[in-house]
Amino acid sequence: MNLIQSPEEGMCMMIVDVDENDDVLEPPTNFSMVEDGIFRSGLPQPSNFGFLETLNLRSIIYLCPEAYPQENMDFVDAHDIKLFQFGIEGKTESSSTSIPNHTITAALKVLIDVRNHPVLIHCKRGKHRTGCLVGCFRKLQTWCLSSVFEEYQRFAGVKWRATDLRFIETFEVMCLRQCLYSIIYQYQGYGSNKRRLLYQEESIQKPKIKSI
Amino acid sequence: MNLIQSPEEGMCMMIVDVDENDDVLEPPTNFSMVEDGIFRSGLPQPSNFGFLETLNLRSIIYLCPEAYPQENMDFVDAHDIKLFQFGIEGKTESSSTSIPNHTITAALKVLIDVRNHPVLIHCKRGKHRTGCLVGCFRKLQTWCLSSVFEEYQRFAGVKWRATDLRFIETFEVMCLRQCLYSIIYQYQGYGSNKRRLLYQEESIQKPKIKSI
Repeated sequence: MNLIQSPEEGMCMMIVDVDENDDVLEPPTNFSMVEDGIFRSGLPQPSNFGFLETLNLRSIIYLCPEAYPQENMDFVDAHDIKLFQFGIEGKTESSSTSIPNHTITAALKVLIDVRNHPVLIHCKRGKHRTGCLVGCFRKLQTWCLSSVFEEYQRFAGVKWRATDLRFIETFEVMCLRQCLYSIIYQYQGYGSNKRRLLYQEESIQKPKIKSI
Repeated sequence: MNLIQSPEEGMCMMIVDVDENDDVLEPPTNFSMVEDGIFRSGLPQPSNFGFLETLNLRSIIYLCPEAYPQENMDFVDAHDIKLFQFGIEGKTESSSTSIPNHTITAALKVLIDVRNHPVLIHCKRGKHRTGCLVGCFRKLQTWCLSSVFEEYQRFAGVKWRATDLRFIETFEVMCLRQCLYSIIYQYQGYGSNKRRLLYQEESIQKPKIKSI
């Protein structure tokens, strides 16, 4: 182990002219990276489109039942982004309706499919519906429940809902995990040895590189 | 643009036996991904080491002046992780001492050096010192200040400090940005066209792959 108290010197030797007119980037409200190629936020506004361009999104998972706003539709059209809509009703704590399990399962299947990455998940405020989907994704990654809840609450803040925590707690990932195992790998996460969802056709079609 | 209401079917055809004894992973408190290869958290406990192994860390940036706990030292030793320590005093809102600019600048240089990635930034609770370093990193990425503050406050919660926000607001990234431009690229972020800090020796030493 190398204990290094100060970084290497010599980085600042060559000072050159700098374009100081960089545009300032404005991520959508409640924006965060979830995992390599997976992002979350509230509903992007036109002022966020410049930032979104830096993500090179291939897909968006939109969790509201309302039609996608026209400006956002124009943005995804212009950038050839696939829009997956799973309409989940927004609700208040007092509401008795709950998020349908099968809708979250369907959204999870899109989410973990690397052919859709980079992908942005968003609802309206990035708190409840997005928080539930990310929470179920973390269960699939075998995060312990207290860490899943901590993350949910970080984004929901004072608006957190006990019904959402119960939904995440009782959501059954075993079926989906079995599906993943059955294909090739469990989707588990970070790092260079991360196990990702792969498709048979990918391993067939990919040309092998021969050593010369 | 393809509007797809439901994901592809056919993923669940082949159900096989599943090892249900997966260990549950426990991320450190206040854990999150900041960017590709950059993570943040509070002080990892031994119960978090299993999770940390999945990150394949190459470095840790530790922002407290206290000696690194022995268990954590053993962990970084065992995994050949470089430990960069920048001792910044923890302080309360009423304290008049402030974070030294040059310490954050030095930590930023380590943070944006891709030779140190994957890297975990942590202090004790992952709120103030870590929040300030990540905030300055976001300024370097040209995030607008309100988004930087939103992220800081998401992790600090009710413990947020006006002194930290002032520190982030007044921290001058132009000098460091000039250094980055002077090497090759501005480190800017996400996506496949992200611009990263590259080193001359890397481009020299890397063998070229010839087409056969």
